[in-house]
Amino acid sequence: MPHSDAVFPRAGTTFELGAWSAAHLQNVEQALARWVTAEAPDGVDHGAPAALVEAMRYAVLDGGKRLRPLLVMAAWEATAPAEPGQAGGNPESALRAACAVELIHAYSLVHDDMPCMDNDILRRGKPTVHVQFGEASALLAGDALQALAFELLTPEDDRMCARRQARLCRLLARAAGSSGMAGGQAIDLASVGMSLTEHQLRAMHRLKTGALLQASVMMGAACGEADEVAGAALSVYGAAIGLAFQVVDDILDVTADSATLGKTAGKDADQDKPTYVSILGMEASVAYAQELLKQALAALTQSGLPNTGALQGLARMVVNRSC
Amino acid sequence: MPHSDAVFPRAGTTFELGAWSAAHLQNVEQALARWVTAEAPDGVDHGAPAALVEAMRYAVLDGGKRLRPLLVMAAWEATAPAEPGQAGGNPESALRAACAVELIHAYSLVHDDMPCMDNDILRRGKPTVHVQFGEASALLAGDALQALAFELLTPEDDRMCARRQARLCRLLARAAGSSGMAGGQAIDLASVGMSLTEHQLRAMHRLKTGALLQASVMMGAACGEADEVAGAALSVYGAAIGLAFQVVDDILDVTADSATLGKTAGKDADQDKPTYVSILGMEASVAYAQELLKQALAALTQSGLPNTGALQGLARMVVNRSC
Repeated sequence: MPHSDAVFPRAGTTFELGAWSAAHLQNVEQALARWVTAEAPDGVDHGAPAALVEAMRYAVLDGGKRLRPLLVMAAWEATAPAEPGQAGGNPESALRAACAVELIHAYSLVHDDMPCMDNDILRRGKPTVHVQFGEASALLAGDALQALAFELLTPEDDRMCARRQARLCRLLARAAGSSGMAGGQAIDLASVGMSLTEHQLRAMHRLKTGALLQASVMMGAACGEADEVAGAALSVYGAAIGLAFQVVDDILDVTADSATLGKTAGKDADQDKPTYVSILGMEASVAYAQELLKQALAALTQSGLPNTGALQGLARMVVNRSC
Repeated sequence: MPHSDAVFPRAGTTFELGAWSAAHLQNVEQALARWVTAEAPDGVDHGAPAALVEAMRYAVLDGGKRLRPLLVMAAWEATAPAEPGQAGGNPESALRAACAVELIHAYSLVHDDMPCMDNDILRRGKPTVHVQFGEASALLAGDALQALAFELLTPEDDRMCARRQARLCRLLARAAGSSGMAGGQAIDLASVGMSLTEHQLRAMHRLKTGALLQASVMMGAACGEADEVAGAALSVYGAAIGLAFQVVDDILDVTADSATLGKTAGKDADQDKPTYVSILGMEASVAYAQELLKQALAALTQSGLPNTGALQGLARMVVNRSC
């Protein structure tokens, strides 16, 4: 188990997001490296071709902020009925959910970067997958990563109860598909050069980025034991930070440089894409991000959950990040 | 329920595949048309963009032999503990499984036809999705179809028990991913212009086509109640017809014309792809397909299942088809 040796710092009165993140990131990175291999997650080699697996690993490993996996782990921790790693919690489920969400995110970046989409050559400071491996391999690696996400969520043995497996697949599938991330991408593509209202822009981002971020929170909660009140509050939290993430992304696209972002800066303006900054202006966008942070933190208070230090810290990180 | 009004002809001493297929195809077509919409499978409109849904429907509806859905329904019928539609069977599960497999198959065709892959402009007698809607939309429509497959398998209410939902997702994810269909596609791409042994060719097709066909059979059985002996026999049946399907595909690529196939004929030779015909020769390929049919039928006998008329008929259809 990649998690078994790890320290899980718990939220206290002085929560340290840095130490908490470091411990969980180590687990997530190890788990991804272990699960994205030629061996299926059941440990058996079913003949996956090495070249495809190499492209998949390139797309997933050694990069990214891992915000979505951290949200899964934080929401799980907030709702785990006992100390993580003990009988009441289920770190194996949460870790699988965390990695599954990241695989969906990674595949979307691979496809998004392709010439027929954003045609980007730089991602996380490295050549994009199609630049490195060719377009066909990028297409297939993305496709295989999406399938692997659902394979990770459905282990054959009893490490996760069937009800949890089904619920996690349901949350992830809906967030990834035409009513979620892929739908948002389609709206995004169709709106290049168009003048959107703030309402339309929000609707687009609710699908494109928001759905998967919100699903990360809900999947973490599905690995714990959230009652209805807590579940609804976490859903509000997830929606708020999902939107905040995009507002801040739009701000950074203007204010940061490519080296800091690890991807090409200023692309939105170059491509004449509608953004929060182009619609609201910079000052109002910054204020809006802070307002969304307030909403997210208020939802955590309303959840009645005692252990939301990591979720609070991640919300602040989303809004106050510089890359 | 798309299935509720339908007649389900049962296998008897004189099984009529035509009537059986027609009844099930009608249900599958209706269900696909109902489930591939802007509304999510839960009946709620979550904001999926109309243009994306249009491309998804174009890719899925009004076309295809629906072999995989029919295999699901046939395997379900063979293993259903009572009359379908009665308490013992679960036609809702089988119909969802049938449609989910078809969505995976449809998405793979969309991506496979793209310029960076096979660059095909004709599919099922119609312009391919990227020709009709553009490459970016084709990419996203394929991605969204894959997600929708898993969404279909995980309805929120109690129409399917969680254990069955999880098992269906597991079977489908594994068959679709790097150890299945996507992996086979990657090997296929890498082997253009190469000289493969029969063993290597079989390994490729076991993943590329065989995995999803075999999964169709196993998913149908997962909607019924197959014991271990029957499950193992159905797995052998699925593997045999999966391979037979590809052998016959290779034969038809040489012998049939584009109008009959509904896709460009002779492409394998044009692209210098290794095929059964190029490796074994035509006569041995035809004999091999018949040998695989024998294996499939023998496995059905060994299964001990009483009601395998449809599975027998489909195996014969796979081998003796002319398009």
